[in-house]
Amino acid sequence: MSRPPYVSFSVRPRGRRPGSADIVDAVLAERARGGLPAGSRLAPVRVLEQQLGISKNTVQVAYDELVARGVLETREREGVFVADAPDAPAVPAGLEPPPLPALRPAPPMTGGGPHRDGISLSVIFIDPDLLPTEKLAECARSVLRQPGFANLYDAQGYRPLREAIAARLNARAIACDPDEVIITTGSQQALDIVARALEVRRIGIETPVYAYARLLFESLGLAITPLRLDPFAGIDLDAWDRQLAAGRPGLVYAISSFHNPTGYSYASHELAGLLELAARHRFAILEDDWGSDMLSGSEYRPMLRMLGGGNVLYVNSFTKKVLPSLRIGYLVADRALVPSLVAMKRLSTLGGAWLSEAILAEFLERGYYDGHVETMQRATDARYRACLAALEELMPDGVRWTTPGGGPSLWLELPRAVSMPALVAALAARKVWIDPTTAAFCGEPHLHGLRIGYAYPKEPELRRGLEILAEEIRRLLP
Amino acid sequence: MSRPPYVSFSVRPRGRRPGSADIVDAVLAERARGGLPAGSRLAPVRVLEQQLGISKNTVQVAYDELVARGVLETREREGVFVADAPDAPAVPAGLEPPPLPALRPAPPMTGGGPHRDGISLSVIFIDPDLLPTEKLAECARSVLRQPGFANLYDAQGYRPLREAIAARLNARAIACDPDEVIITTGSQQALDIVARALEVRRIGIETPVYAYARLLFESLGLAITPLRLDPFAGIDLDAWDRQLAAGRPGLVYAISSFHNPTGYSYASHELAGLLELAARHRFAILEDDWGSDMLSGSEYRPMLRMLGGGNVLYVNSFTKKVLPSLRIGYLVADRALVPSLVAMKRLSTLGGAWLSEAILAEFLERGYYDGHVETMQRATDARYRACLAALEELMPDGVRWTTPGGGPSLWLELPRAVSMPALVAALAARKVWIDPTTAAFCGEPHLHGLRIGYAYPKEPELRRGLEILAEEIRRLLP
Repeated sequence: MSRPPYVSFSVRPRGRRPGSADIVDAVLAERARGGLPAGSRLAPVRVLEQQLGISKNTVQVAYDELVARGVLETREREGVFVADAPDAPAVPAGLEPPPLPALRPAPPMTGGGPHRDGISLSVIFIDPDLLPTEKLAECARSVLRQPGFANLYDAQGYRPLREAIAARLNARAIACDPDEVIITTGSQQALDIVARALEVRRIGIETPVYAYARLLFESLGLAITPLRLDPFAGIDLDAWDRQLAAGRPGLVYAISSFHNPTGYSYASHELAGLLELAARHRFAILEDDWGSDMLSGSEYRPMLRMLGGGNVLYVNSFTKKVLPSLRIGYLVADRALVPSLVAMKRLSTLGGAWLSEAILAEFLERGYYDGHVETMQRATDARYRACLAALEELMPDGVRWTTPGGGPSLWLELPRAVSMPALVAALAARKVWIDPTTAAFCGEPHLHGLRIGYAYPKEPELRRGLEILAEEIRRLLP
Repeated sequence: MSRPPYVSFSVRPRGRRPGSADIVDAVLAERARGGLPAGSRLAPVRVLEQQLGISKNTVQVAYDELVARGVLETREREGVFVADAPDAPAVPAGLEPPPLPALRPAPPMTGGGPHRDGISLSVIFIDPDLLPTEKLAECARSVLRQPGFANLYDAQGYRPLREAIAARLNARAIACDPDEVIITTGSQQALDIVARALEVRRIGIETPVYAYARLLFESLGLAITPLRLDPFAGIDLDAWDRQLAAGRPGLVYAISSFHNPTGYSYASHELAGLLELAARHRFAILEDDWGSDMLSGSEYRPMLRMLGGGNVLYVNSFTKKVLPSLRIGYLVADRALVPSLVAMKRLSTLGGAWLSEAILAEFLERGYYDGHVETMQRATDARYRACLAALEELMPDGVRWTTPGGGPSLWLELPRAVSMPALVAALAARKVWIDPTTAAFCGEPHLHGLRIGYAYPKEPELRRGLEILAEEIRRLLP
């Protein structure tokens, strides 16, 4: 690996295959142009022979002639080099590097990922210990052992996985064909390709909202119509009506169950109300249903796709539920939209990691998924109950929280008197990490609090984190 | 899975935790709004208990009261349902579906992928039988067995993989730190995030060029300055100079080794010439170096990044060399650019499939890569020689081809008299599939031919495909 590469020249044969004279000409021409500074190494005979598809002898004859002319010299065990000939042009002066490109303003990045030490209170992932690593390893072994395992990829996604997803949705009374499913790198890529494929200049989004959705839409130049969501008061459909009538977005992005970051779930009349607004104001709907199956007792929540039918663009993901490092999400869209969406996915990543897709398909086919989700949900339910009990016991008056009852997080609302930057700093000093998710809001936040991810830390850790949080809140109260 | 979900209502507690009265209020309010049509199922007691974090008894008391009021009814083994009360509002009339979104014009997709039957002559992948599936399975087993295998992901990419890549580049005398490496979903994502992160409105690209690069840049609204590449005549640097002076692109995208689709490799003076133009016209360079290590005898070619230094944005990929279904590429960029590029990657896919990245890191760490590339290169060299010999033997006069000597493909140039659509149709009728790569050209193609991928089909298959190709070319010659 450490041998420097040789200088390079192009041979343009007079006939259909290069002869020695063509090689001699090419070296002389390249040297005359300054492309072969003295002392630089040429391709060894065996490499040039391979490259040009000619006999070793043809190359050797050319090199011999060039050595005889004093253009090249051979060095024992090192190869063929350009000689320091008196008529050789000077080595081109040290090249000036090309300029560095200019950057667009970078979107602000939000925190919320787990920290290596201390207690991470706002993480929205599931505790890795609750994830089915062993069973996935079993599936990976089986997939990689399949002699015919396809090494290539289908840009729409591994078909057996699309079939398994469609079958699961059909079992939930959502009509869906494998041809309408597009596998994506997490739900993020689904949002990206939808926003890039659609002829939409303005999008309606909840505020607060999943921050990377807002940042993505903005980075793609979409104008935003904010739809205020207060998880303690529910959705003010009349206010949304006015906003949507004024903004006329072509698309509304909605997280209908266990909304990130508030934990709110749309009530039935809110689901119906948004669909009614869509029909009246003629906007399409992109539903991010990351959560409808993250509910106790193998129950699941209704969602827009179920009530609104096949026109609703539907996004979901296995990231939280199976293994984040697989990075598999999916998009369900009407058949008429699929070719354009797949074309956009091609431009973005060509295809996804099919190996991951095949492992997940195997996991679903073996029936591991349902059992896993049930077990995982029991564990997160226990953490949720412990979290509610701790909040009740520890939090001072004036602190409120949502009770999502599913998904991995809830929203903790603090009295306005508690300064969020001061709280973040005080907690950081004690190695408790929170994410006030300011990037989740369009404009000035109307909520004043933080996301509590109760599914990531273990119970004693969560308890300890909430104790410290409550202490610091009390300290910051007037 | 097949049980329909229940209707949904939001409980807004008067105090910090919901009581039965809150539940009763919530159901009555939701019914008054039309959100609870008669006959719809409510959440079972145990689910609501979980969701609200209250005792089963609190829920039961509320449901009992609502049943007593005639609002709800219980059905044996089925659950709690909304009663058909005379004062209940009518079920909201069947919801009108939201409109389907409008699409932007879809980019044309190019062919060139393998066909299931017949002979695929233009495929640019390596024969899967030459890929190290067994060793990858071994690495996957080992990765998934690691107890501490990180389930989460680093948006910049799995660090051990970034370290392995930096070490390999350093061994080729290319200064590079793991912090300057960004793992991407194939090289396609690297192009996507570069084009999205940079403040660039116009880009220079070779014509012909890797078609999905051109289509991507165009879909992102970049204006194109085409840089004509004739693999039989080399690069006309004066013409490029004029084009670049006129267009003033902020960035030039160049495939310097085994150019796709022509198989051309830049000569030393062309590499230096492009760098000189970059310094003079102040454009940045994005080098797609998919090929510099796909050369015989563990040799590799010089590239722009080596001569131009750390300012050159450098893209490479393991897709062709290890396993396409891993979908791992990478981008090397100056430290100052990395935060913005990673931010763009976050918006596009958050992270990649870390499992794939870990498997590849293991593959590199165990030293499997070098041996594999050597073996693979020997096999593709043999196919290349066989391809050249067959072309020489079979092709009529007037047909020319490039002699790349590395990478998986060459360009076959036909007499203009041979109609490409007629040739494609005649070959398709005999189940021989070619891709004339018209999407690779900006404007009217100045070449008239097709890519021959000799690394994908096995020798007898390639030979048979070329025989049929030669027959049909002869038939179409006047």
